Amino acid sequence: MPRYLDIHNGQYGQTPEMLAASHARDLAVQSKYGVRYLKYWYDAATGKIFCLSESPSKEAAVAVHHEAEGDAGLPDEIFEVQEYE
Amino acid sequence: MPRYLDIHNGQYGQTPEMLAASHARDLAVQSKYGVRYLKYWYDAATGKIFCLSESPSKEAAVAVHHEAEGDAGLPDEIFEVQEYE
Repeated sequence: MPRYLDIHNGQYGQTPEMLAASHARDLAVQSKYGVRYLKYWYDAATGKIFCLSESPSKEAAVAVHHEAEGDAGLPDEIFEVQEYE
Repeated sequence: MPRYLDIHNGQYGQTPEMLAASHARDLAVQSKYGVRYLKYWYDAATGKIFCLSESPSKEAAVAVHHEAEGDAGLPDEIFEVQEYE
C-alpha cells in the first residue's frame, strides 16, 4: 500500500500530550478509510508536524486528518513516498 | 541524540539504485561525524527526498551529505524533530 508523508505548518506550541491526543483521534477513525498512521515528527522551532501513513490514496489519508481534527487538521502538503532504509 | 529530517528539492528522475548509491555514500562517511542516517523517502512526482538521521547537531547531519555528495547533496531544508509513534 502506498505511503504518504504529510506536513502541517504553523503548529507552534504543541506539547507531546497535545500531539498524542491528535494522533489518538486519527487512530480512532483511520480504519474507516483503510489508513494506518505510523509515525509522526514535530519540530517545535518551526511549528511543523510530519505524519507518515500507509493509505490507499492521498485523499484517504487527508480524510482521516479531516474527520479527526476538522479543517484545522488538514495538512498543508502531502507527498506519496517510497520508503527506503 | 537529536533526530533531524532533511529535505532535498528538485530531485527528479532518481531511480532506487541512484538513491541507494547516494545513501551508501552517506553511510560510508557518517561515523566520522557521529551521525546515523536511518531512513529516507522519495516522491518521484515532486522530486523530493526526505532523510531521517540521528545526529549530534544539524551541522553534522548536513556535513555528512556534503562530504558524501558535494554541494549537490546539501539539503534545502532541515528540521530538528521529536519522533513519536
